[in-house]
Amino acid sequence: MLTNEITKLLQIEYPIIQAPMAGGITTSPLVSEVSNSGGLGMIGAGYMTPVQMREQIKEIKQLTTKPFGVNLFVPNEVNVFENEIKSKSANQFLNPIREQLNVSPKDSVDISTIHNAQETFHDQVKIVIEEKVSICSFTFGIPSKKVINELKQHNIILVGTATTVKEAVENEKAGMDIIVLQGSEAGGHRGSFLDNDQESMIGLMSLIPQVVDNVRIPIIAAGGIMDGRGLMASLCLGAKGVQMGTAFLTCVESGAHKVYKEAVLNAHEDQTVLTRSFSGKWARGIKNKFISEMKKHEEVLPDFPVQNILTQDIRKASATQNNQDYMSLWSGQSPRLAKNQTVETLIHNIIAQAKNIPLE
Amino acid sequence: MLTNEITKLLQIEYPIIQAPMAGGITTSPLVSEVSNSGGLGMIGAGYMTPVQMREQIKEIKQLTTKPFGVNLFVPNEVNVFENEIKSKSANQFLNPIREQLNVSPKDSVDISTIHNAQETFHDQVKIVIEEKVSICSFTFGIPSKKVINELKQHNIILVGTATTVKEAVENEKAGMDIIVLQGSEAGGHRGSFLDNDQESMIGLMSLIPQVVDNVRIPIIAAGGIMDGRGLMASLCLGAKGVQMGTAFLTCVESGAHKVYKEAVLNAHEDQTVLTRSFSGKWARGIKNKFISEMKKHEEVLPDFPVQNILTQDIRKASATQNNQDYMSLWSGQSPRLAKNQTVETLIHNIIAQAKNIPLE
Repeated sequence: MLTNEITKLLQIEYPIIQAPMAGGITTSPLVSEVSNSGGLGMIGAGYMTPVQMREQIKEIKQLTTKPFGVNLFVPNEVNVFENEIKSKSANQFLNPIREQLNVSPKDSVDISTIHNAQETFHDQVKIVIEEKVSICSFTFGIPSKKVINELKQHNIILVGTATTVKEAVENEKAGMDIIVLQGSEAGGHRGSFLDNDQESMIGLMSLIPQVVDNVRIPIIAAGGIMDGRGLMASLCLGAKGVQMGTAFLTCVESGAHKVYKEAVLNAHEDQTVLTRSFSGKWARGIKNKFISEMKKHEEVLPDFPVQNILTQDIRKASATQNNQDYMSLWSGQSPRLAKNQTVETLIHNIIAQAKNIPLE
Repeated sequence: MLTNEITKLLQIEYPIIQAPMAGGITTSPLVSEVSNSGGLGMIGAGYMTPVQMREQIKEIKQLTTKPFGVNLFVPNEVNVFENEIKSKSANQFLNPIREQLNVSPKDSVDISTIHNAQETFHDQVKIVIEEKVSICSFTFGIPSKKVINELKQHNIILVGTATTVKEAVENEKAGMDIIVLQGSEAGGHRGSFLDNDQESMIGLMSLIPQVVDNVRIPIIAAGGIMDGRGLMASLCLGAKGVQMGTAFLTCVESGAHKVYKEAVLNAHEDQTVLTRSFSGKWARGIKNKFISEMKKHEEVLPDFPVQNILTQDIRKASATQNNQDYMSLWSGQSPRLAKNQTVETLIHNIIAQAKNIPLE
């Protein structure tokens, strides 16, 4: 079961993907060590400039000859006028927090980067092709036919993200080769992209079999999976592999801030919540002061990525001050299983435990 | 893996428990057929009078010589004064719905049954002992030391319910022999009982391994499990068996209303929501008009079981009129996997599929 459609397609030894956690987590040592240990390392390039992304791709190629992938955020439409107004009130809510961190208050927001989002995305796609990265995954939507065809022409394996059966079917129709299926257990941003009156929060025990019954392309399960037990459980449910975020986040090689890692290592399973206060998009993280204080304003905050830009100074200052209160502590629902260990040890233990599960 | 601690302890062939779904679902044919097919049938006695419960136990003993169990609701404290006030406003919100169903409006609520809740519970325990029912499970809390000791003295196997690691540990400390671990995927009422600032909604992929690592007694996984894939996945995660609700709810032998079964058979995985509008306690069901219309009032409704009594006439009239709009359509997150089939077929297929999962 450990050698299957996914390991063959991605040309990796174990069906384990390290989640592309954006914002500095996926260092070159992390990504390359995952690939060198038999899994698939992924660059979380969502917040990177094309130049930064190309640099890291080149760096990783120095550290591994094994396959690795890149994850890109599909840009969304942003109503500039509406968000400029929302930003003004958002800043009013954020300024008291800035004060606590000795950060100067803000009134407006520089949303120039948002105007370039489409261009940035297309530049990133170009670089994936130029640098011959073999695997490209997408979150927050499905790229255009044009982009998909271009990547396919260069034999790049395409990985989509889904949180419901409907989203999985859309990904398959559009031409994705693989789908990462994100359960409610998952940490970080929700990858849902189809309009729904509520965030789709389906547990993997339910989500995997229902999706597998409705699509033909291979499924990678993501959400709360930390060890061999979760890997084998996902395979039993019909997935062909797993994507792990939190498990790799607390690894030695991860670029996560020391304070962030400690928060995850010390957290309990019932301490994560969904919030959109950090970025404008719903995401799961450890409940802290920022989340609690911003909860009453949550509904009126600007969209992603505007709110993300607004909170950047706060998150940065909090980290610099070694203060977890105002950092985004993204985590899945299995923090008790997180360990401070090397990637090599983690992957070795996942496989050893998986092989030891006595299924007969 | 299918013959284990649980099958030996409960003296059943397969580690499959039929969830004790209260309110008429668990008919004697359903319960006895599950036990006769090698699983453990359970009477959902939460809303039954002691007399009704004894009658059904005797009836089931006519239909099976195999073990079966009873589930009891541990009664909670109800602030009568506070709930009388909340009932007046609740009725104001419910009366327009009553009008739509041609049900006469109400002003007050008869909460005399609530005063007897403790007495009813103790009578039920007495009957479990007198009728020599071998397994007794509890939801909504942990019974008193006195009740636990009494049942243990009669060698009755005790099953608790938990939704977090902390709740599982409390159950173990109190002397439970087995814990049913309810994931966020589960349909019906949430079995959480420890105070928390929010309902604990942990997916099974996360919940099972973290609990298994923290208690020694065997764990039964519950929530969205519908077939052999879910059974094997749960065993991989460290559980020793599974409890299935929705899967048995749509069986031929189930007492669920035809309209209710149809709603589940036609539902998609993203159509269930948590609501406390039907009963005062959070529960997962298919979103319908009642849930939508009552959502804005949800926070101020009376506690369980007061709200449950208030909505009884509405739920009953809706069912009589074959109208799913105002019925409580409890369902887990896997309705796409529900089938209209006999218990025998369901259990046979679960085991056949489980044995076919090629784990090597």
